[in-house]
Amino acid sequence: MPGQRRDPDRLLPTGSAARSIARGLYERVADRAILSPHGHVPATLLSEDAAFPDPARLLVVGDHYLTRLLHASGVPLDALGVGTDADPREVWRTVAAHWHRFAGTATGYWLEEELAGVFGIEEELTATSADAIYDGIVTRLATPEFRPRALFRRFGIEVLTTTDDPLDDLGPHAALQREGYRVLPTFRPDRYLDPSAADFGTNVEALLGATAAPTTFTGYLSALQTRRRHFVEHGAVATDHGVAEPLTADLDTSDAEALFQDVLAGRAGADRQRLFRAHMLLQMARMSVEDGLVMCIHAGVFRNHSTTTLERFGPDTGHDIPVPTTFVAGLRPLLERYGLERDLHIVLFTVDETTFSREIAPLAGFYPSLYIGAPWWFLDAPDAMARFRSAVTETAGFYKGSGFIDDTRAFLSIPARHDTARRADAGYLARLVTEGRITLAAAERIADDLVDAIPRGVFKL
Amino acid sequence: MPGQRRDPDRLLPTGSAARSIARGLYERVADRAILSPHGHVPATLLSEDAAFPDPARLLVVGDHYLTRLLHASGVPLDALGVGTDADPREVWRTVAAHWHRFAGTATGYWLEEELAGVFGIEEELTATSADAIYDGIVTRLATPEFRPRALFRRFGIEVLTTTDDPLDDLGPHAALQREGYRVLPTFRPDRYLDPSAADFGTNVEALLGATAAPTTFTGYLSALQTRRRHFVEHGAVATDHGVAEPLTADLDTSDAEALFQDVLAGRAGADRQRLFRAHMLLQMARMSVEDGLVMCIHAGVFRNHSTTTLERFGPDTGHDIPVPTTFVAGLRPLLERYGLERDLHIVLFTVDETTFSREIAPLAGFYPSLYIGAPWWFLDAPDAMARFRSAVTETAGFYKGSGFIDDTRAFLSIPARHDTARRADAGYLARLVTEGRITLAAAERIADDLVDAIPRGVFKL
Amino acid sequence: MPGQRRDPDRLLPTGSAARSIARGLYERVADRAILSPHGHVPATLLSEDAAFPDPARLLVVGDHYLTRLLHASGVPLDALGVGTDADPREVWRTVAAHWHRFAGTATGYWLEEELAGVFGIEEELTATSADAIYDGIVTRLATPEFRPRALFRRFGIEVLTTTDDPLDDLGPHAALQREGYRVLPTFRPDRYLDPSAADFGTNVEALLGATAAPTTFTGYLSALQTRRRHFVEHGAVATDHGVAEPLTADLDTSDAEALFQDVLAGRAGADRQRLFRAHMLLQMARMSVEDGLVMCIHAGVFRNHSTTTLERFGPDTGHDIPVPTTFVAGLRPLLERYGLERDLHIVLFTVDETTFSREIAPLAGFYPSLYIGAPWWFLDAPDAMARFRSAVTETAGFYKGSGFIDDTRAFLSIPARHDTARRADAGYLARLVTEGRITLAAAERIADDLVDAIPRGVFKL
Repeated sequence: MPGQRRDPDRLLPTGSAARSIARGLYERVADRAILSPHGHVPATLLSEDAAFPDPARLLVVGDHYLTRLLHASGVPLDALGVGTDADPREVWRTVAAHWHRFAGTATGYWLEEELAGVFGIEEELTATSADAIYDGIVTRLATPEFRPRALFRRFGIEVLTTTDDPLDDLGPHAALQREGYRVLPTFRPDRYLDPSAADFGTNVEALLGATAAPTTFTGYLSALQTRRRHFVEHGAVATDHGVAEPLTADLDTSDAEALFQDVLAGRAGADRQRLFRAHMLLQMARMSVEDGLVMCIHAGVFRNHSTTTLERFGPDTGHDIPVPTTFVAGLRPLLERYGLERDLHIVLFTVDETTFSREIAPLAGFYPSLYIGAPWWFLDAPDAMARFRSAVTETAGFYKGSGFIDDTRAFLSIPARHDTARRADAGYLARLVTEGRITLAAAERIADDLVDAIPRGVFKL
Repeated sequence: MPGQRRDPDRLLPTGSAARSIARGLYERVADRAILSPHGHVPATLLSEDAAFPDPARLLVVGDHYLTRLLHASGVPLDALGVGTDADPREVWRTVAAHWHRFAGTATGYWLEEELAGVFGIEEELTATSADAIYDGIVTRLATPEFRPRALFRRFGIEVLTTTDDPLDDLGPHAALQREGYRVLPTFRPDRYLDPSAADFGTNVEALLGATAAPTTFTGYLSALQTRRRHFVEHGAVATDHGVAEPLTADLDTSDAEALFQDVLAGRAGADRQRLFRAHMLLQMARMSVEDGLVMCIHAGVFRNHSTTTLERFGPDTGHDIPVPTTFVAGLRPLLERYGLERDLHIVLFTVDETTFSREIAPLAGFYPSLYIGAPWWFLDAPDAMARFRSAVTETAGFYKGSGFIDDTRAFLSIPARHDTARRADAGYLARLVTEGRITLAAAERIADDLVDAIPRGVFKL
Repeated sequence: MPGQRRDPDRLLPTGSAARSIARGLYERVADRAILSPHGHVPATLLSEDAAFPDPARLLVVGDHYLTRLLHASGVPLDALGVGTDADPREVWRTVAAHWHRFAGTATGYWLEEELAGVFGIEEELTATSADAIYDGIVTRLATPEFRPRALFRRFGIEVLTTTDDPLDDLGPHAALQREGYRVLPTFRPDRYLDPSAADFGTNVEALLGATAAPTTFTGYLSALQTRRRHFVEHGAVATDHGVAEPLTADLDTSDAEALFQDVLAGRAGADRQRLFRAHMLLQMARMSVEDGLVMCIHAGVFRNHSTTTLERFGPDTGHDIPVPTTFVAGLRPLLERYGLERDLHIVLFTVDETTFSREIAPLAGFYPSLYIGAPWWFLDAPDAMARFRSAVTETAGFYKGSGFIDDTRAFLSIPARHDTARRADAGYLARLVTEGRITLAAAERIADDLVDAIPRGVFKL
């Protein structure tokens, strides 16, 4: 997709032998269909298929990677249209004026890829070029070729997964699937499992109400199972768990019942709330053993670090920060019970990259149920991907990885993100070939499998 | 400055495309003025401008990077002149006899840079060459060109900051500034803020006495403010905080007053001493919001690990050791109160490099008040610098960094250290260019800004 | 040793300048004698010198690196002959069918090295070639050239150390030494020092019984000393300590006596058991000061993570997992007492690579008694070795490292493992040369010393 300004060999290794091999590996997979087994694009984007509003709302306002670094550079969030209806052209000009601050970042790279690859705009974004680029995007957005479904087809997306509330009716997914778009929901129950979440009591009440379940722990579990079944019936392949720490616990039934009543009544302190979350993560694994849903664990983020920002602008506005994470002791109760199940698939995602070589690769290199999640969030960038491959491959090879996951709510960035991963993996494989560690034929098979057989296998697509 | 033996392309990437770009980037900045916004050279070195005593005292005795590795190799510290008046020529011979042990170290690199760059001595340091090199240095030190001020000018230092006790009168700084040397003090109050410091009570008493403040918490705060004002009046731009952990706390006034009286009376246990330190770090931020001083936080070092060595040779003798560090929860009270202030500048330094990608880049990529400190101490070396850039840039770009900081008490190593950083950054930027991630023009602007606009902006120079 | 298919430059850097220098450095040391100062090959393998049974039992069954990843891929351990007498040819076919899963792993690399280097089999292992390769190995194993002692000589092993129980009589070692094989025992007392170990009481009883020592702490210490002396008399140079955490404590005699009686009587809770282990690690250092045995500390592994697997297949079956580790505070009591001893040698091994730059290099760069252990277990692989050198060298140089340690129970993999380290080190040194950081002459000396003077010095060989 890139035009003439972008280097066709971008992100590939710079040594001539490795670059040439990497180019060959990349070219094998550059145009392969996109499997996106985890992301945050809303299904309604495609079911409604409305034209995108304007460049700012499309590319800036909702992209907290972009707004956070501008905020860090002294631009107030409201000047970027976050929670306001700032003039989109002014927002775009602000981005352009600060664009040099994104040099070397993943966000900067993606946006340039989108401008070039999606819109065919190769000109550098500067204060001077801002208006012309803005107008260029506006013109294109007005055409049918830039509607969401047209882009979905042009991007070559075979499967797109969304992330949804357990009580969603999933009507848009059903409608899309009837029309041949494989858009699959993901069951994300955090707010029903975490007693410290805002409105936990109300959420559980709504869950029980929706499934006509009694207010007992058994009723609660059965309500969750009912809703998971609803997701499975709508094509879901996975659940998603955003947890501050990857902690699990294995309580007996009566303890769990008592704990449930306590957390619901607001009688449980922080420690018992934590225990409840830990027990529920294990319960989710139990249900996955039964209904086959792949379990994604996204662990180790301090959410909403800035209270002022949360109160003014809401969550997902750029102030979620990674914390030190460890999986080995915390996951053990779950693994003791279900870790050896071969049909259970649990994918571990981390933003603490120290865990890659120390814990995640060693764990996934033993337990058949565990898979290594692709580099996530702050680590979803070329150098971080190279560190990731280096950290996990020598212990666990390529076949215990999840394949790439874009994890994005920025629909237009999907091709750029997958392309980045394909280039990074081609580069890593090429290095192994030039270092005489694997044959070219092996590298070719792995390059193919990384974008196809591996994610299909892990996510049961 | 290097003579013929040193490779003019040293530290630059070895691939030919990247090397040639890196060389161009490096050459742009190689001779730019040195801004040194954090360091430990005493102002008296320049105000007195005495000839340096001898090669050992100049280059060995006070350099704990050098003496620590010799000590680790079995050489007693007293044989190196630490706390003794060992024969300087013998000290030098000892260094030379062990010189192969420094191959690959930052210290070894710097000393060779100093010999070549400052003294024009390109010969390899060995047991055989030791005496001739020693004599060569002695000869040069006897000339006016090797006095501190002459070197200051020759090194092209525009700004040099020192680190000073809050009660220092700063006379030498004033004298130097009158003569046109921009030598600026830094306010380092650790021993007045940490109840576990030796002589804390005496220190606070002296502080209160010097400012005629009452023995109340309010008086104590006001005494600190008074002394900060004295520093500001003498050109200070920053404060420095060497803390074992980056912990902050936000106490109300009466709790703070009671705690102050307790720590002063020696009634506070370890937990309450820790709370006091945490509250005082937040108070320092509050004062910085008022007086504009940039706050440097150097966190995560276990000081004086060897009691025997401390007792015999004193502090700063090579046995300070990094410990696991985390910033996210500990800094939060401070950030909740002041993190969104755009005129507050806090620079975070770490010797736990896991925090670069996990915490510091994500934090500084959101909070306008936070900046990413350059690689510090054990991380102030070419490979570690490359890891640092790789770890932080994809999240936070180049413009939330502090620019290079030499942090040294070894005056003669200042050019070598800045040169190392300039080469390392040229190499990193060149890689981004050859990988098609940024344009050459962008790299050139960044290379320039890293040695000029960025440190000037962060440190308000 | 490699045949024609293997790239003679494998693992060397791919840039042409660095590769040519690296090749020269590698060739200096490629055929140097192997010093193996820490490993797990049983002495009886050589004293009995029996023919190896079959390819599966030789290369697969006991190699938990290999079986763990197959297990993670869904192959049950019993199908691999772990704890069963599965048909060795079927085991071999299973490995071959999954061989693509080992691409990029250290284990995959080693096995291919063994097939090529030891057996001269260059053909790729696939489902198709499995039987022919199996038969090829069987044929060779039947010849005298493939008996253990013949291979010992062919591999060029000068010293091989084993790891042994304190109560072993070490007869096989004595016999081998009489015949000129330098096979040395290592004193590994974990099960006598850790009150939480299975059968701790029985173990201590046996220890006291074997040395006719009274059931007092003094008797217990003296029993350990007696057995250490037995090891010294049989050529031992080292002790080995596999500890979950590198914790030490310094108790006074009466506290230690009371604690000993409590742990022996099963009256001590987890905290006091931990204290006992910590005190005993310090006691081991004390004894090392006296008898000169080098102390290897292998820290930071959660042993036997899967209870089901432990119960069915026993320990060392692939489910030991690294955990976050820190040395600075935990080792301090030991270092306060013995850290400055110059004849005490303590080698620190970690599987948490964050400790390399943060703790181990800084500690070993100051304390004369401390040495940096070679990358261990999950980190014993080319990329991890490169990260290791990068992490430690700039602080501590090359001469505070331990030299390479194969740590293996897979006798046939010894040459491949040492060769990997020699190639990795040649590559790292070549990079320093091409970056102008060390001279070629310095690199040559270091390359030589890394395989000879350094391990001889650290391990007192």
